[in-house]
Amino acid sequence: MKAYLTRAYMFSASHRLHCVDFSPEKNVEVYGKCNNPHGHGHNYRIEVTVAGQVDPKLGMICDLGELDTFVQNEILERYGLANLNTFPEFKDVVPTTENLSVEIFNRIRSGFNPAQVTKVRIQETAMNSFEYSGGAALRN
Amino acid sequence: MKAYLTRAYMFSASHRLHCVDFSPEKNVEVYGKCNNPHGHGHNYRIEVTVAGQVDPKLGMICDLGELDTFVQNEILERYGLANLNTFPEFKDVVPTTENLSVEIFNRIRSGFNPAQVTKVRIQETAMNSFEYSGGAALRN
Amino acid sequence: MKAYLTRAYMFSASHRLHCVDFSPEKNVEVYGKCNNPHGHGHNYRIEVTVAGQVDPKLGMICDLGELDTFVQNEILERYGLANLNTFPEFKDVVPTTENLSVEIFNRIRSGFNPAQVTKVRIQETAMNSFEYSGGAALRN
Amino acid sequence: MKAYLTRAYMFSASHRLHCVDFSPEKNVEVYGKCNNPHGHGHNYRIEVTVAGQVDPKLGMICDLGELDTFVQNEILERYGLANLNTFPEFKDVVPTTENLSVEIFNRIRSGFNPAQVTKVRIQETAMNSFEYSGGAALRN
Amino acid sequence: MKAYLTRAYMFSASHRLHCVDFSPEKNVEVYGKCNNPHGHGHNYRIEVTVAGQVDPKLGMICDLGELDTFVQNEILERYGLANLNTFPEFKDVVPTTENLSVEIFNRIRSGFNPAQVTKVRIQETAMNSFEYSGGAALRN
Amino acid sequence: MKAYLTRAYMFSASHRLHCVDFSPEKNVEVYGKCNNPHGHGHNYRIEVTVAGQVDPKLGMICDLGELDTFVQNEILERYGLANLNTFPEFKDVVPTTENLSVEIFNRIRSGFNPAQVTKVRIQETAMNSFEYSGGAALRN
Repeated sequence: MKAYLTRAYMFSASHRLHCVDFSPEKNVEVYGKCNNPHGHGHNYRIEVTVAGQVDPKLGMICDLGELDTFVQNEILERYGLANLNTFPEFKDVVPTTENLSVEIFNRIRSGFNPAQVTKVRIQETAMNSFEYSGGAALRN
Repeated sequence: MKAYLTRAYMFSASHRLHCVDFSPEKNVEVYGKCNNPHGHGHNYRIEVTVAGQVDPKLGMICDLGELDTFVQNEILERYGLANLNTFPEFKDVVPTTENLSVEIFNRIRSGFNPAQVTKVRIQETAMNSFEYSGGAALRN
Repeated sequence: MKAYLTRAYMFSASHRLHCVDFSPEKNVEVYGKCNNPHGHGHNYRIEVTVAGQVDPKLGMICDLGELDTFVQNEILERYGLANLNTFPEFKDVVPTTENLSVEIFNRIRSGFNPAQVTKVRIQETAMNSFEYSGGAALRN
Repeated sequence: MKAYLTRAYMFSASHRLHCVDFSPEKNVEVYGKCNNPHGHGHNYRIEVTVAGQVDPKLGMICDLGELDTFVQNEILERYGLANLNTFPEFKDVVPTTENLSVEIFNRIRSGFNPAQVTKVRIQETAMNSFEYSGGAALRN
Repeated sequence: MKAYLTRAYMFSASHRLHCVDFSPEKNVEVYGKCNNPHGHGHNYRIEVTVAGQVDPKLGMICDLGELDTFVQNEILERYGLANLNTFPEFKDVVPTTENLSVEIFNRIRSGFNPAQVTKVRIQETAMNSFEYSGGAALRN
Repeated sequence: MKAYLTRAYMFSASHRLHCVDFSPEKNVEVYGKCNNPHGHGHNYRIEVTVAGQVDPKLGMICDLGELDTFVQNEILERYGLANLNTFPEFKDVVPTTENLSVEIFNRIRSGFNPAQVTKVRIQETAMNSFEYSGGAALRN
């Protein structure tokens, strides 16, 4: 009996969309105002879905408190109120929200053991969201 | 041509998370404040998804009014403004929202015939949701 | 590495649910007040999901601006602030939101090339939504 | 000790913005696509605020059930799934949401006695809302 | 130059609407299913509004962190995941959301000094909210 | 007969909270992580409220299209996808959302004539909002 638990988290950060392999003109053409050198930002709403059997005694897929602690320490502390371009994982990878969702998925998949993360969805604005459900790792 | 209709319903109820097989200390360790003997409560938002062919004349998967009547009579009347722990189905099963979503899914699956329920998702708070899409029944 | 981008759009329109093959009595029986000759309306929120590889340089599934332009020109300009029953595609097809989601899916699938649409979800009211993910075309 | 209770209701309806005193050209200039003869529609979310003393025994400003019954019978039954232009109150008054909020305010003010309505706010779309708090009646 | 800051907080709790001065029959008549002895519950969303001058150097009305700490310690720790009827302040006062908003307003007004609370609004369900802006204290 | 129209707009931007009159240590003490030199960002939802008589013929307080054009040209083009600290108005004024709401209010009050702006409310995150209704201008 498989069930899914989705827990939402929020943090605010800034980013600049800029590809080091492109000329300045090409960067403006591709990213428009999102390429401005001073950056802009978002309130990111991260929805983490884990899947599993419902433990017949506990009635739970996993302990929400453990998931909260992991995400707080590994994701929110890291990216909250920060500029995404300043992190090593976004040195050669443009910090689009597509890539951010892959990065966050991989961090939870490799570090959180009590249940298996099956999806990370990031609401970037009221009108945009991105979703990633795993696959080959981003930079391999 | 398969399509999906999702209809949302809301009710408010209370529950206490307490497993009769655990010691009082173990219950507090597992459920924290959710184990307090007087219970607490939620506004549950239930999203019921049914799947089916779109009838080429009617342009509908099923009659929304029939689904509303079923859910009103079998789910909302039962659990609305009640304490979940007082129902026989939650005598030996902890009324976590995981188990509540399984119970509601099974009640719709076995009792509603005009279309097949394929998913029940329960939003427990603004930050938590649980989803169940069937499988072996909970207590078999 | 497959990822999903979902972009939401909104427009307001009116419709009347009425099947030309039914008698007036049958239409009232099936559609209730939705069959009233003067119609009623909704704020439709359309969520378009496209799937694809995240381009390793761009960090994007597809150019959001291109999707916006397509949907603006082909969907929002067409149906926004209009009466759905006045369009040829709803001459013999009842403009239920089920059928509207099939129609919009097919228009995007056949006309938008930069990425593959995999789902169209329409939120008709705060409590109802419909989702279509393709299959045989509606009228073939 | 004054307190405020706000209760939300939803209905879907259609309207056409058209002023009988204007030429066809002037109507198009003023109302744009909202003047199209077939109309368009919205999901209106009506928020009714009543003010009063909190009854020291009951702990309530007024009985919510009485307000629900009044609004159901006098507002939702009337306008729900209908075309606003077909009502006598909008024969000479353009059924903009501004005027709809005045009309609904006046109907509640004159017909509902258990507590005093102090504000009607109508959310017309996710981006627009209108609010009316009384004053001289609309057509006097 | 007066400005307003509104900060939202959420907690889940249960309550039973029951007036000790009423007969059992009268309690059922007044409160309906909300009078059931086992209680029911809600996700309460509390919106606290404080008013003040914007400090010309800091650019702030008050330190958000101080408000968060106060509300966390005095309100959320107290009522979160609890049953409202078990508190002394609701021994003789029915824990309706009207009375809860008065109680929370008074606790903030008397205990939080950095800025003046001017309104407490409690969203009880998606359709109900209550608002209190001060006045004579509840039980005087 | 006074009525209110509120129109919402959204833009994403970044800012850094830093007061040039404070020492680095004092800036960290006051603004915490919001003082990091690379900034962070938000999706700002701006709600502009204008008040006025409802024109008896038009049924409108003012032409929504004119308000949209003004806000698009003067506010959204300016601040959208930008870094607030780079503008002259925030050279000596910390771009907190309190100050941003004052700045936007003053720009609309002095430049938009068809109706009088009475309130600007900015939702900074899902949990914070700021509201300004005029008074002495910010820097006089």
